[in-house]
Amino acid sequence: MNASALNAKNKIPAPEWTTPIADALERVERTIESAADSSVDIASRISSYVFAAGGKRIRPSLVLLSVGISGGSPEADEVIRMAAAAELIHTASLLHDDVIDSAVARRGVGTANSVWGNTISVLGGDFLLSKAFCLLSDIAGSELVSVLSRAAVAMTESEMLQAVCENNVESWRTEYWRIIRGKTASLMGACCESGAILSRANAEARAALRAYGENLGVAFQIADDLLDITGDPARTGKQIGSDLANGKFTLPVLLATKHEHFPKELVNGGRISLEQARELAEFIIESGAAAETRQIAKTFASQACEALEAFAPSPFKHSLQLLALSAAARDF
Amino acid sequence: MNASALNAKNKIPAPEWTTPIADALERVERTIESAADSSVDIASRISSYVFAAGGKRIRPSLVLLSVGISGGSPEADEVIRMAAAAELIHTASLLHDDVIDSAVARRGVGTANSVWGNTISVLGGDFLLSKAFCLLSDIAGSELVSVLSRAAVAMTESEMLQAVCENNVESWRTEYWRIIRGKTASLMGACCESGAILSRANAEARAALRAYGENLGVAFQIADDLLDITGDPARTGKQIGSDLANGKFTLPVLLATKHEHFPKELVNGGRISLEQARELAEFIIESGAAAETRQIAKTFASQACEALEAFAPSPFKHSLQLLALSAAARDF
Repeated sequence: MNASALNAKNKIPAPEWTTPIADALERVERTIESAADSSVDIASRISSYVFAAGGKRIRPSLVLLSVGISGGSPEADEVIRMAAAAELIHTASLLHDDVIDSAVARRGVGTANSVWGNTISVLGGDFLLSKAFCLLSDIAGSELVSVLSRAAVAMTESEMLQAVCENNVESWRTEYWRIIRGKTASLMGACCESGAILSRANAEARAALRAYGENLGVAFQIADDLLDITGDPARTGKQIGSDLANGKFTLPVLLATKHEHFPKELVNGGRISLEQARELAEFIIESGAAAETRQIAKTFASQACEALEAFAPSPFKHSLQLLALSAAARDF
Repeated sequence: MNASALNAKNKIPAPEWTTPIADALERVERTIESAADSSVDIASRISSYVFAAGGKRIRPSLVLLSVGISGGSPEADEVIRMAAAAELIHTASLLHDDVIDSAVARRGVGTANSVWGNTISVLGGDFLLSKAFCLLSDIAGSELVSVLSRAAVAMTESEMLQAVCENNVESWRTEYWRIIRGKTASLMGACCESGAILSRANAEARAALRAYGENLGVAFQIADDLLDITGDPARTGKQIGSDLANGKFTLPVLLATKHEHFPKELVNGGRISLEQARELAEFIIESGAAAETRQIAKTFASQACEALEAFAPSPFKHSLQLLALSAAARDF
C-alpha cells in the first residue's frame, strides 16, 4: 500500500481532545509539509511518504494545548512552527528506529527503509532533525532550541541504552525507567515546556506542564510496550511479540518474571523467535502481568492530570486530561 | 589499533596555519570532550573513540580564524563553543557516512560501525548532531542556529543526492557540483559565516567570509575526491578506488571520460570491483585527468583567497590563505 492509500485508510475520526486545536493542527500539517520540502527530490519524497503515513500528531498537540492552557494563543505563527518542529524530531527518530529494528511495517504501511533502503532512511532522519532546528531558529530566543536539543540528546542516549540492553532481561530491569523516560517522556515533557515558554508562563506553570508531559510520556510508553503483548495487529500494523523478538524486555515482561511459572529459559540471552515471543505474550496476559502493566500506565496518567491542578478550567485543560487518560488506555 | 594508540600515531605536527589559534584549538578540544560526555556509557565511549581518532579540526579552525580576521577574539567562550559545535556536526555526518558506505577504516583506525555496529553508530551520529545544537543554544541569538541548521540540511540533502546517483556516471555529471557544494562547502561556508556573526562583522565581511569558506570547501572536496585516485593508502588509511567501487564517479572520473580510450564499460551501471577501480584510477592518472583535477582544486583555492582581499593583513588572514592552498594541494 502506498502512503496516500494508507493516509486515506488511516483517516480515523479526530479524537475528542483535538477539538480546541483543530484549526491550529491543520496549520501545523501545512507547516510540516512545507518544512519537509526540498529541492532534492528524494528528500521531499521520503518526507511526504512518512508524514502521509499518518500518526496521531500527539507532540504538536501537546505544544498547542500547553500554550492554550497557560494563556497563549495556539494559533500564533511561532507556536505552529514549534509544534511542527516537535513532529519533525519525533519522525526523524522513527525513521532511525525502523532502520535499527529492520522494521518492515509501521502504522500499517511499509516503513521508509523497506521502500527506499537504509541509506536514504538514515539520511532522511538526519534531514528532518536538521529541518526541525531550522524551524526553531526562526523563533526568537534560544531557549526553545535548548529545551528541544536536550530532549533530542536524551532520546538518542536512551535508544543507545536500549540497544545495549538487548536480549538481557536483567539489564532491562535495571534500565527500563531510564529508557522510557529518555525515549518518550523527554520529548513530550519538552513539548509541554516549550508551550509554557511560548506563552511566557511563570516558572510554576512551566514546571507543572513539564511534569504533565513527562508523566504522560511514561504512561504513553508503558501503554505502547503493552501493545506488543495485547495489541490487535490489524490496528497496530505490528505483529504481536515484535519487541520481544527484538530483545526488548519491557514492563509487561519484567512484571511477568516474578510469576513462579515464568518460562525463564526464553529470556536467558540469545534472540527468541516470533513464535516463542507469541507464547511469552500469552503467558504475560494469563499471569496478570498485562493487567498490572495497564494499571501502572493509568497511575502515571493520573499523575499527569494532577500536575495540571493549579490551572483554571478551560477546553485546553480538559483536552490535556482526556489525552492523558486515552494515552494510558489506548489499544492501538 | 584502538583509538588512543591511533591518536598517538596520528599526532602529526600542527600545520603552520594553526599558529595564531593554537591555544584556542586546545580549548575547543576540551569543549568537544565535555560536550560529548554522557551518563550513558556507550554514548561517551563512541564519542571519545571518534574524537580520539584524530582529524584536522579544519571546521573549528575556520570558525576561530574567521572571528580573528574580522576583529573578534578567537578565545571568547561563545567562539570556542561554536567551533566545537561545528566539529560535532561534521563528526555526526562522518559516523553516518561510514554506516552508509559500510566503511571499515577511517584515518587509519577501525570505523565506529566496524567496532560497535550500525545501530550504535547511527544513534551516535544523532547524539552528536543533537549535542551540537545544545552547544549552540548556549550562545545568545538564534542566527547561529539558523546558519548551522541550514548547513546540516544541505549536507543531508546532498548525501541523498549522492546515494541516488550511485553507479550512474551521467547522474554524477549532472549533479557533481551540487553534491560537493552541499556536502562540504555548505558547512565550511557556515563555519566562516558564523565567525563573522560572532565578531559582529558588517554584511560585506560576512559575505566575503562565506565566499571564502564555500570556495575552500569546493577545493577541499575536489582534493578529497582526488585522494581516491592518487592518495597513499598508508597515509589516507583508505584503499585506492574505494569511492569508485562505491559507485561514486567524482570529478577525476568525469574529466577522464572525455578521453578517447576511456574504458566506458566500467561505468555503465552496476558496481565495479576494487580491482577494476584500481585500473580505472591508473587510467585517470595516465590520461592527465588527475592533474587537471588538481588544477581545478587550486583554482577554487585561489578564489577563496581572493574573497579575503578586503581584509587587512593579519596572522589570521595569512592562516586562512595557507589553509586554502594546503587544502587544494593536500595528499592525505
